[in-house]
Amino acid sequence: MTMSKDKSVEEGIVEKLINKSENLSRWYSEVIRMAKLADYTPVKGCMVIRPYGYAIWENIRERLDEKFKETGHANAYFPLLIPESFLAKEAEHVQGFAPEVAWVTHGGKEKLEERLAIRPTSESIICHMYSKWIRSHRDLPVLINQWCNVLRWEMVTRPFLRTTEFLWQEGHTAHATKEEAEEEALQMLRIYCDFIQDELAIPVIIGGKSEREKFAGALRTYTLEALMCDGRALQAGTSHNLGQNFAKAFDITFQDERGERRYVWQTSWGISTRLIGAVILTHGDDAGLIIPPNIAPIQVIIIPIWQTKTRTLVRERTEHLLKLLKKKFRIEADLREEYTPGWKFNEYEMRGVPLRIEIGPKDIEKEQVILVRRDTREEKPIKESELKVEVEQILQNIQTNLFKKAKKFREENTHEVRGLDEFEEILRTKRGFLIAGWCGKTECENHIREKTVATIRCIPLAPERRGGNCINCGERGELVYFAQAY
Amino acid sequence: MTMSKDKSVEEGIVEKLINKSENLSRWYSEVIRMAKLADYTPVKGCMVIRPYGYAIWENIRERLDEKFKETGHANAYFPLLIPESFLAKEAEHVQGFAPEVAWVTHGGKEKLEERLAIRPTSESIICHMYSKWIRSHRDLPVLINQWCNVLRWEMVTRPFLRTTEFLWQEGHTAHATKEEAEEEALQMLRIYCDFIQDELAIPVIIGGKSEREKFAGALRTYTLEALMCDGRALQAGTSHNLGQNFAKAFDITFQDERGERRYVWQTSWGISTRLIGAVILTHGDDAGLIIPPNIAPIQVIIIPIWQTKTRTLVRERTEHLLKLLKKKFRIEADLREEYTPGWKFNEYEMRGVPLRIEIGPKDIEKEQVILVRRDTREEKPIKESELKVEVEQILQNIQTNLFKKAKKFREENTHEVRGLDEFEEILRTKRGFLIAGWCGKTECENHIREKTVATIRCIPLAPERRGGNCINCGERGELVYFAQAY
Repeated sequence: MTMSKDKSVEEGIVEKLINKSENLSRWYSEVIRMAKLADYTPVKGCMVIRPYGYAIWENIRERLDEKFKETGHANAYFPLLIPESFLAKEAEHVQGFAPEVAWVTHGGKEKLEERLAIRPTSESIICHMYSKWIRSHRDLPVLINQWCNVLRWEMVTRPFLRTTEFLWQEGHTAHATKEEAEEEALQMLRIYCDFIQDELAIPVIIGGKSEREKFAGALRTYTLEALMCDGRALQAGTSHNLGQNFAKAFDITFQDERGERRYVWQTSWGISTRLIGAVILTHGDDAGLIIPPNIAPIQVIIIPIWQTKTRTLVRERTEHLLKLLKKKFRIEADLREEYTPGWKFNEYEMRGVPLRIEIGPKDIEKEQVILVRRDTREEKPIKESELKVEVEQILQNIQTNLFKKAKKFREENTHEVRGLDEFEEILRTKRGFLIAGWCGKTECENHIREKTVATIRCIPLAPERRGGNCINCGERGELVYFAQAY
Repeated sequence: MTMSKDKSVEEGIVEKLINKSENLSRWYSEVIRMAKLADYTPVKGCMVIRPYGYAIWENIRERLDEKFKETGHANAYFPLLIPESFLAKEAEHVQGFAPEVAWVTHGGKEKLEERLAIRPTSESIICHMYSKWIRSHRDLPVLINQWCNVLRWEMVTRPFLRTTEFLWQEGHTAHATKEEAEEEALQMLRIYCDFIQDELAIPVIIGGKSEREKFAGALRTYTLEALMCDGRALQAGTSHNLGQNFAKAFDITFQDERGERRYVWQTSWGISTRLIGAVILTHGDDAGLIIPPNIAPIQVIIIPIWQTKTRTLVRERTEHLLKLLKKKFRIEADLREEYTPGWKFNEYEMRGVPLRIEIGPKDIEKEQVILVRRDTREEKPIKESELKVEVEQILQNIQTNLFKKAKKFREENTHEVRGLDEFEEILRTKRGFLIAGWCGKTECENHIREKTVATIRCIPLAPERRGGNCINCGERGELVYFAQAY
């Protein structure tokens, strides 16, 4: 997984990105490397998130964390290592996760008595602590989140989308009643939905998972499903109503108002660095990344256009503009002299900076600058006096436009199908979301999967229409979303 | 390491904290548990950082991260797991860290071909990546930091001060010249120094480490040493000038302006959750924690004093005050009816909230509140109209006062000694910092350590006076700080 030394940089050659439509998989790997979002490492399936990629994660984290805190959640930190016996306490949970756990067997020179799992998720250690902390109804609800790294031993990995180690947040809550837990799981689903649509400009379908696809140990799993540009679905986040499964396995009880001892009701919910992969796949084009302004590390790049004679003048004006806009926007100016403006245009387009400001001697004369949008490539001269207002409006407009475009793509690639033949035909030719009837039985789900590789991505929360006979067995059922998944 | 169920909470009994002076070690453990800063876990030497403790860490992180970014550093994320062969590349480094590494030997069901270390620190994996990324002088300096978890298999652990897993930040920079690297190492030392003194209110001595005490693989280690209330020194942070040791081991080279290939010069620097332990030990008293206002999760607590008849009136006034002050301060009001004001006073004193506002019906009549400082216990009625200004001033004053008090303590417990007998006598009776002459030889350092358990904590950067004969061999040397260390 190591890569050869990057000769092109050394020799100043402009490296050309492959077209997205030509080979999506290669485009995806190349754009991540060229834009310096991430890099491969000598550790199987593990990536380095480089500063430019990490800055996107910081923006995601900051905005989501604010929403978590507004809704009463607090952050904490639980151990990375989990004793094997803890993982085993909830039967479904261990079955689901044991095959992909990395095991610590030695500390220093000593062999451990019990193997320790590197957390693939933290339910088991957190539930153990909750069983110590929760005593009375007065201790409820417990609303805790943690931002951390987790590890799942994956066979096939791709940067951001599926890596052995990844960063995420995992919320873990405990409640006195079933209703409260259900309301919490749905609240977090809505928070994720708003966040992914408003900040990442990615439209999602929300709903429940089938028994087969739900989280190991959960009562009910809610999911947010996005459609990527190759017609495959990506699970962008999940929120689980854990019911009392973990409470019973870990003996988490409380004394209610009448003095009776009862099990708590729990939820857990998470999103990960995978969202960065979703952003890349959803918005990018042949020229490279397009990062939605709300999470872009650099929202605006100023590129001065100068000759030897005009360099001082243009540099001063650039620095003036930078100062003017710095308080309001994440903005940088590329004042390097060893690169041409043309090289810089390509570079920042490839890195997905939403808006470019060009300024040259003629612009200065006219007291204007040229604004170039990354999404539409539209160029527009703007009076300097109107710059602040204009930049803000254009950034908002780009944000909205990216969402609209992605939504339009999804609509064009969502197909309502009635028969298994049509279902297979669409999957073979164009993929996308397939809305089809399903009777609710796992046998039918399995059969469809074996025949078509598509899985049920999501059972809509509020279906537009009820009904729809199962495309496998023909019995009465409801309409669900199928797709081939990432 | 598991603890029994906390009966006192269940039964509503007020648990009494042991006096700090009576048994510091027990006081430390108890206050951490009672204030809900952290808790033990079933994993050897690993703790949970609970929301109240984690909020201190969030405040530390936010403030330091801002300083890192102001000085041009960017965050990134490198893998948790490091192949054994990488750790082994720098000879001193592997010797220093191998004995305390946790090893991953299995992924899922497969046994790994090469063991993977859970990072005890990340020099080796980061240097490997730098050797790929750095080509030209134009790529320098590289100024990267990461906030993450690390693991060191420790035999004896104490929450925050020494735990198997802990949270920290590690900065890793690469420079074109020796001078730049040295300047960077010193710049970060100064940033840490200002931060620890201004925000944590802990005075530190800064300087270099001896050969024996320096970081495994570094050319020079700079340290910040704080004196805890039991007279033992605590290393609060370190900044290393790595020279070219890692550059040579990992082949990190760049082409300079004249086309010559040269090795980079590097630094690394870090602080950890240990700082929370330092805050607890430095400022706490018999009643519990005292958290400096600048990093306190709750800076001000409002406690209403009501009877059945006055409850509505007092509650409304409390909510009004909370709203008034919420924008400016981290403030909460405890409106719970099942606890008495007296219980609440104790609780928030124990949790170290710097300032308490009491408000009752008589105060409302007089349009005043009572302010009670946590550090001096001083009570003061304040007109509501002056509240905002007054609270701000008192918080600032508490911050300054905590620092002054800690500094006074350090001064009273810093002893200049001339002979080994006096040295031993002081260590036996009162500990503290011992300023004594040292010739610079490791033999003398070892001999002093074996005889007295004290180590050289720090060789001052700007010694007040030069000279001082070695207390072991009598040869000419310089004055250094000795102490028994945490």
